[in-house]
Amino acid sequence: MPRTLYLLPTPIGGPSPEAVLPAEVLSTTRSIEHFVVEELRTARRYLSAIGHPRPIAELQLAELNEHTPPTEVDGLLRPLLDGHNVGLMSEAGLPAVADPGALLVAAAHRHGIAVMPLVGPSSLMLTLMASGLNGQRFAFAGYLPAKPEERKRAIRQLEQRSRSEQQTQLFIEAPYRNAKLLDDIVRTCAPSTLLTLGCDLTLPNGFVHTLSIAQWSKLPELPNINKRNTVFGLLAV
Amino acid sequence: MPRTLYLLPTPIGGPSPEAVLPAEVLSTTRSIEHFVVEELRTARRYLSAIGHPRPIAELQLAELNEHTPPTEVDGLLRPLLDGHNVGLMSEAGLPAVADPGALLVAAAHRHGIAVMPLVGPSSLMLTLMASGLNGQRFAFAGYLPAKPEERKRAIRQLEQRSRSEQQTQLFIEAPYRNAKLLDDIVRTCAPSTLLTLGCDLTLPNGFVHTLSIAQWSKLPELPNINKRNTVFGLLAV
Repeated sequence: MPRTLYLLPTPIGGPSPEAVLPAEVLSTTRSIEHFVVEELRTARRYLSAIGHPRPIAELQLAELNEHTPPTEVDGLLRPLLDGHNVGLMSEAGLPAVADPGALLVAAAHRHGIAVMPLVGPSSLMLTLMASGLNGQRFAFAGYLPAKPEERKRAIRQLEQRSRSEQQTQLFIEAPYRNAKLLDDIVRTCAPSTLLTLGCDLTLPNGFVHTLSIAQWSKLPELPNINKRNTVFGLLAV
Repeated sequence: MPRTLYLLPTPIGGPSPEAVLPAEVLSTTRSIEHFVVEELRTARRYLSAIGHPRPIAELQLAELNEHTPPTEVDGLLRPLLDGHNVGLMSEAGLPAVADPGALLVAAAHRHGIAVMPLVGPSSLMLTLMASGLNGQRFAFAGYLPAKPEERKRAIRQLEQRSRSEQQTQLFIEAPYRNAKLLDDIVRTCAPSTLLTLGCDLTLPNGFVHTLSIAQWSKLPELPNINKRNTVFGLLAV
């Protein structure tokens, strides 16, 4: 009898789980004994922190990350086919959005296995809702290219797309390159374009600011977002 | 002394608040006495249901919806400028994403008022994470046009954009037209295109299914999604 693949969100960057996860999500997580996780160590530490009632060493944890051969994904459904619920967790936030967990979800659909997504923190949606930008039309572009010239071209393309479709553009960067990307955006975009930074949202020192490029470029200094979880939002107006 | 504009998510379609909202979000909501809400009656009923400690009639509730003149939005910030925290709530789900609450958030940023988004249910993200489609690149297009020919053109454009950019396309429809839209998609798109339906997620009878158009069109009958909260997802492969 196949069971359910639960998509279990986790906190982003260390707030208390009760601050960012509904009580029922925590109790569902504690009721599951088979997990597919992005990284074993993080997952074990988290399951222990939320007080999973079983000894952590007795839980069945399998890894699914960028090193997993695609041919091995179907095998991760085995506990489901044997009648157990399985919980999918990423390193932080919502699983199966920007991580290889989506492969497992796709495999579950191919096998007719029920998939149940649970509520949790999404730095994208936290930034979007707090941006004041257009939430009726938006796009997420993932990571921008790392090379300087390609990156500037990508920023210009996002700004053009935003202008022609009145579509908010959301994107991210490897955290240690955040300050450089912010610099590039401020140098590249039109003065009237709105730029939102959503930084460490759900953490005590988190913030979200929306200013025009003209305003950002007049600040005595740009906020320090290096190595901090940051979502960028652009809207050309 | 200006205070904080809290963005307070609410349940979608009537699950218990504890199932979809973190305990800290509920306690923050109970600690606030000034609100800007999309509809007074829904908001009062919700604040009563979660056990707000003050008599509901003594809370300050102002409305912000599609009938609010834009010139009146700045005035809704008054309690913040007077030193009170304000909570913004939409009819259901995350405020300020697909409702006029974004105008208040934008006004707060213009006045330098801190904006704090809290975690709650997003039918978009629940559908996306449970779709198995591409979560690294996606776009939300809002409502499709209502007229049949314009709508088919919009569906074709979304499918083309999805193919050329490998971008998942998410969109919605007025719930009473959901069945008609599903029909149009199945008739219009290529057999290999993947279509996800995320229907009443967070409710007991909710489901998410991802199938190719060829598979959808072979079903003895399409699922009944009329008048049910549904998010559509397309990925051309």
